[in-house]
Amino acid sequence: MQPLIALTTDFGPGSTYVAQLKGVLLSAVPQARLIDLTHSIPPHDLKAATLFLRSTAFGLPLETTHLVVVDPGVGSARRPIAVRARGINFVGPDNGVLSIATSQPQAQVVELNRPEYFSAPVSPTFHGRDLFAPAAAEIASGVPLDQMGSTISDPKPTCLPQAQKSGDAIYGETLGCDRFGNLLTNVPASWLSEGCSVKVNHESVPMFATYSEAPNDRLFALIGSDGYLEIALREASASVQLGAVEGIRIECSSNPEHTAQ
Amino acid sequence: MQPLIALTTDFGPGSTYVAQLKGVLLSAVPQARLIDLTHSIPPHDLKAATLFLRSTAFGLPLETTHLVVVDPGVGSARRPIAVRARGINFVGPDNGVLSIATSQPQAQVVELNRPEYFSAPVSPTFHGRDLFAPAAAEIASGVPLDQMGSTISDPKPTCLPQAQKSGDAIYGETLGCDRFGNLLTNVPASWLSEGCSVKVNHESVPMFATYSEAPNDRLFALIGSDGYLEIALREASASVQLGAVEGIRIECSSNPEHTAQ
Amino acid sequence: MQPLIALTTDFGPGSTYVAQLKGVLLSAVPQARLIDLTHSIPPHDLKAATLFLRSTAFGLPLETTHLVVVDPGVGSARRPIAVRARGINFVGPDNGVLSIATSQPQAQVVELNRPEYFSAPVSPTFHGRDLFAPAAAEIASGVPLDQMGSTISDPKPTCLPQAQKSGDAIYGETLGCDRFGNLLTNVPASWLSEGCSVKVNHESVPMFATYSEAPNDRLFALIGSDGYLEIALREASASVQLGAVEGIRIECSSNPEHTAQ
Repeated sequence: MQPLIALTTDFGPGSTYVAQLKGVLLSAVPQARLIDLTHSIPPHDLKAATLFLRSTAFGLPLETTHLVVVDPGVGSARRPIAVRARGINFVGPDNGVLSIATSQPQAQVVELNRPEYFSAPVSPTFHGRDLFAPAAAEIASGVPLDQMGSTISDPKPTCLPQAQKSGDAIYGETLGCDRFGNLLTNVPASWLSEGCSVKVNHESVPMFATYSEAPNDRLFALIGSDGYLEIALREASASVQLGAVEGIRIECSSNPEHTAQ
Repeated sequence: MQPLIALTTDFGPGSTYVAQLKGVLLSAVPQARLIDLTHSIPPHDLKAATLFLRSTAFGLPLETTHLVVVDPGVGSARRPIAVRARGINFVGPDNGVLSIATSQPQAQVVELNRPEYFSAPVSPTFHGRDLFAPAAAEIASGVPLDQMGSTISDPKPTCLPQAQKSGDAIYGETLGCDRFGNLLTNVPASWLSEGCSVKVNHESVPMFATYSEAPNDRLFALIGSDGYLEIALREASASVQLGAVEGIRIECSSNPEHTAQ
Repeated sequence: MQPLIALTTDFGPGSTYVAQLKGVLLSAVPQARLIDLTHSIPPHDLKAATLFLRSTAFGLPLETTHLVVVDPGVGSARRPIAVRARGINFVGPDNGVLSIATSQPQAQVVELNRPEYFSAPVSPTFHGRDLFAPAAAEIASGVPLDQMGSTISDPKPTCLPQAQKSGDAIYGETLGCDRFGNLLTNVPASWLSEGCSVKVNHESVPMFATYSEAPNDRLFALIGSDGYLEIALREASASVQLGAVEGIRIECSSNPEHTAQ
């Protein structure tokens, strides 16, 4: 058995903190296989981390353990938690970053409050190394969650703004952008109907199925690979063109007459 | 058996796209060992990707499977292909990025045209996840190429400019630079003779065997570790000094009299 | 047996040089597990590499082999060495970067001077690939150090400035900063007594146990997670505020009266 442990942090690629997490995990579970999911979450950016996990967390094999350390409140009263949802385990701070897991039906959530599973002494500034990584190692080794701590029923919700429906209209916004400048939104593809219209900052944009169908010089919308509406510009950056990343207003309507200019 | 799968992408280190590729590969082949070769190819930069694979692709162990996703034409008519050359497998788009493999003697090239090996539905914007990664997983698990698709004989050639010979002279150019500012060229070391002269932008530069032999303040040429001529500046950046990365003219002559100033 | 090989380089994440090291290591020891510790050491920065290894090298499991390639003197007379200390192996250049290992009690240090363990020919510009990686592969496979080369007793010492004690006072300096702008110093926590005072650039700063106890707008000191004094600014960058990274003067006194302003 070579358990998989997937790492998501804001420590920066190649930082000493990541190296220390790896040392703790491999020392505790020498046969573990570590997967660097990302260490490029901007420092303390809970939104970016939540968005990252939205599109990646449940794509790993069953029984993977996610170790998520994006923890601006380290040393404060925020709870350390572990979550099990859809056969995947998660360990991290209870600051909303694990909401993609805690919000799943039948998610099991425990507060990691049994010091026998921590490294002693716990550094007040590095729970990732002394608390979360040891707990992740235990869980990856097969220790059940209910042995790791007490069940809680009020994990912190997501910090991402949610899209809203109002009659035929959907009101959403951009949440971030990828390396190519494509803007990710909070509008689920499942809310959109065939032939719906899309406006970005009150301007209509056409919708295409692929990047290669779109003209080179005009913003367009498409369904992104993670199941949400995306705003893109072919072979250029939609984010640069719009001069923003987050909070750009998106409006969709299933009835084009209502929103045509 | 723990097959090796080596990843080369332009997705950026720590991007969600890389994480999703890893999820697909590990879900399909749980015992696979993933090697991050690079995710730092500049977006859509086929030249950089081709150059990267030139110095790295055949250094991996026999039976490694390379998954290469640098794919500006995703969703267009470019073919997805798999290649087997010198005991190494490659999966990626047929846009020239796999030319280091397709140009090998006795390379086997197939078009990946059997949808039973893809994830359904294939997202029109993310063939990496839905088409290339599933195919790489099959090939890494031992499925032979001729079962994965139809043999083709016209894979796209390299997009890198090639050096030219004319009498005693060799005309080449720089193709890129490394982190230290050393400029990589397309002049193969095997074309150079003992005592040949080298000019960069029409200026003669001395040739040294090692960085440490060179003076601190002057451009020089050397044979780079991947078997091509390199232009360097000791403990400084040749690229910064010359103000360019690609397309700097290189001229070599096996007869110094012909090119001396 | 799947030996662990941990990589620390200044090649940049995703560089061809890293990919080539991985190819050599996996070709020599196909079952090896490679751990990317960091490839983000600034080019040729021996201080940064030494500092990185200070907080990470001994956190890996026993029998791990560290391959460390930060080698501004490649091709010069600096010796290639291997070190064994506290049950961990190290391979790299003798330029001080392995001083955290060579300075351990009972460290074993050998010069790697047996060409039969190198790749032939050794590129004069890439000892990482042709000399250090092959040696690391041998050592990771179980070849004892005394078989790899001749014992030496004068490895190069650290390039990091050391803190000094003078009576009740400790004089140190900052050595670098982490991604969050926290400044790392050379003052060992073990030198500090309860209630000691700390001055940064001659200005007193308070000391707190955790980031979250500190006020938002003022520099403070704390014991960092690697056992040295750190200078921080809550949810902001101490380094940006002080306008420097290295060489900021730190003074501590176990007797506050001596240093109060």
